[in-house]
Amino acid sequence: MHIFELINYLCVKTFNSSNFKLGILGGGQLGKMLLQPAMNYSVDVHILDPDPTSPCSYFCKNFHLGSFNDFNTVYNFGRNLDLITIEIENVNVEALKKLESEGVTVFPQPHIIELIQDKGLQKDFYIQNNIPTSPYQKIVNREELVHYADKFPAMQKLRKAGYDGRGVCKINSLKDLDKAFNEPSILEELVDFDKEIAVLVARNASGQIKTFDAVEMEFNPDMNLVDFLFSPANISDELTEIAKQLAMNVVEKLNFVGLLAVEMFVTKDGKILVNELAPRPHNSGHHTIEACVTSQYEQHLRAILNLPLGCTDQRQPAVMVNLLGEENFIGEARYVGVNEISSLGGVYLHLYGKKITKPFRKMGHVTIIDSDLKKAFEKAKFVKDTFKIQA
Amino acid sequence: MHIFELINYLCVKTFNSSNFKLGILGGGQLGKMLLQPAMNYSVDVHILDPDPTSPCSYFCKNFHLGSFNDFNTVYNFGRNLDLITIEIENVNVEALKKLESEGVTVFPQPHIIELIQDKGLQKDFYIQNNIPTSPYQKIVNREELVHYADKFPAMQKLRKAGYDGRGVCKINSLKDLDKAFNEPSILEELVDFDKEIAVLVARNASGQIKTFDAVEMEFNPDMNLVDFLFSPANISDELTEIAKQLAMNVVEKLNFVGLLAVEMFVTKDGKILVNELAPRPHNSGHHTIEACVTSQYEQHLRAILNLPLGCTDQRQPAVMVNLLGEENFIGEARYVGVNEISSLGGVYLHLYGKKITKPFRKMGHVTIIDSDLKKAFEKAKFVKDTFKIQA
Repeated sequence: MHIFELINYLCVKTFNSSNFKLGILGGGQLGKMLLQPAMNYSVDVHILDPDPTSPCSYFCKNFHLGSFNDFNTVYNFGRNLDLITIEIENVNVEALKKLESEGVTVFPQPHIIELIQDKGLQKDFYIQNNIPTSPYQKIVNREELVHYADKFPAMQKLRKAGYDGRGVCKINSLKDLDKAFNEPSILEELVDFDKEIAVLVARNASGQIKTFDAVEMEFNPDMNLVDFLFSPANISDELTEIAKQLAMNVVEKLNFVGLLAVEMFVTKDGKILVNELAPRPHNSGHHTIEACVTSQYEQHLRAILNLPLGCTDQRQPAVMVNLLGEENFIGEARYVGVNEISSLGGVYLHLYGKKITKPFRKMGHVTIIDSDLKKAFEKAKFVKDTFKIQA
Repeated sequence: MHIFELINYLCVKTFNSSNFKLGILGGGQLGKMLLQPAMNYSVDVHILDPDPTSPCSYFCKNFHLGSFNDFNTVYNFGRNLDLITIEIENVNVEALKKLESEGVTVFPQPHIIELIQDKGLQKDFYIQNNIPTSPYQKIVNREELVHYADKFPAMQKLRKAGYDGRGVCKINSLKDLDKAFNEPSILEELVDFDKEIAVLVARNASGQIKTFDAVEMEFNPDMNLVDFLFSPANISDELTEIAKQLAMNVVEKLNFVGLLAVEMFVTKDGKILVNELAPRPHNSGHHTIEACVTSQYEQHLRAILNLPLGCTDQRQPAVMVNLLGEENFIGEARYVGVNEISSLGGVYLHLYGKKITKPFRKMGHVTIIDSDLKKAFEKAKFVKDTFKIQA
């Protein structure tokens, strides 16, 4: 254990009053959904985001305008807080490390955020810890790709700052080289997968670990964004168990504190490979708000406050649909179809309140619960066809 | 229909963007729990409260400091809003009427808030509309009580501004006259009741009506505050149906828009009497957040936004415990037992974030869900014995 980490564990301040100051780096939709259970605990929430109209900005008295990438901004934001967490991983880790060394608790721990920020280090971590993942090469620039022509078609992924489908490029042949990234990246062999799944796992500072059920994502092939998410995943109990064990293995090997999303492939020959990690509440866990006894947001909060983790049982099957800005519309968002979808039972609208819509921007999501997953899916398709975000 | 009400219906602005401005009079815990679903719709919430440390003050950018009892303050607060609602009924109704006459939508409608503010007018409304209620007398001052000595023991209730057990006095005999209120009040014959129940009912501007299941309240006899709330109530299906019909009857006769809590007595001879109304989300519906498909807070929001009302089915039986400030403690609130109760599954802590605790002040609540109501009650008793709010 790193010395600062040890100090950190010893310094963890116990939450026992509304004076407990929690800082969140990032004020997007994940921050907003983290704010909602934080309101139930009445912790004193401080949020840092560069966008004065970010989803959190309307619902947090202590909203600080500034960049979570800037050392001084992050350091000054965090100095007087009891606990700092993130809702986005592209943050200034050096500032978090300095804060940690000065006794401010930072969960997830900065050195783990740093590892996860870099897809190359993430991949190396899997290999070092016998966690199955797809074969890869770390490359420095575009030119290097010519040496790996035998691996094509393959996925090139930027080592840093990829997000929501950005930073990923499919290289089919040497002809695609001009569209390839000319930055440090990894080249991953294409996985012949049957399904993409995810397991959310939480670990608190005392070492307690709990996973949620595995979920299944249906991606839009053009946008690399999730069209539908199904929970539970339609995989065998055996595979579910393997996936959960893998997630627990990852969180334990990392000594991670907080909620970790572990995205995986189920290959056509029935193996599970870890794809990538997100050290925070994740798109693949939105449904937990209504579908599970404890939501992923509350679980993250419990983990970082070092409270006993909540029960992760799923109360009912669920489908989640991302609401994306409609193609050809840029400007002030206008919601079409609120009435139509609200007349269905068990349909939960979450609008993130982003003022400006753009094609395929994540503007909200809808969770549908039903005792029958197929019926939930029927409603989800209706929602997807009916609800539009235009300008 | 009143002419202003008609104008109001015609002017109802449709919610279709995050520019929709919703005002809430009152920033207490009910306002905070209303804010949480409002965050899901991303409406632009404005809150008026005189306390700079009220529960909502930390979670609302547009928090306005001021009295909701003052005409000018309420009028100026409301002038540029699209819709105004309340989370407490003791507000300046004249200002709301003026705003309504100028085209601002106010739900519940000001003239209904005015009626409900006055327990005398409330009682008269029941009689005029054949809604069963206990016999009563309206009295102007303490002296008048001597004429009703034959009714003793009876309950004297202030016509206005009673709240959370205040404004209620039991008169056993003429000897109690010196502790009686010397203000306009009603004298109610004691009801020999078996249970106290409540039905929450919502009606939107289009006239759609939905009730929640009846709940049962176990009051602390000393404090006139709810110790435990059980949902569903342990009454026959027949009585449940009568109670729901009564609630629907009340909301329809009032032409009320919003969520209405209808508190009732079940008498020992099996009759139901309406006790009193609250024109807003209510303590008897806190459990709906986790126990029902739609919470009372979201239902209120849907009703006033004139959206289709949500499904009110109960997903699991629930018990709710109010968390009151412990006796003998006044000062900055400190929570004792967070860890202990968090280790139980299906236990939801809601701390209101009031900085100062006082004996019996409502500081939070806990909802417990379980497939078995008895098991939920066991956990509830543990919570009540374990969780303390001290200073």
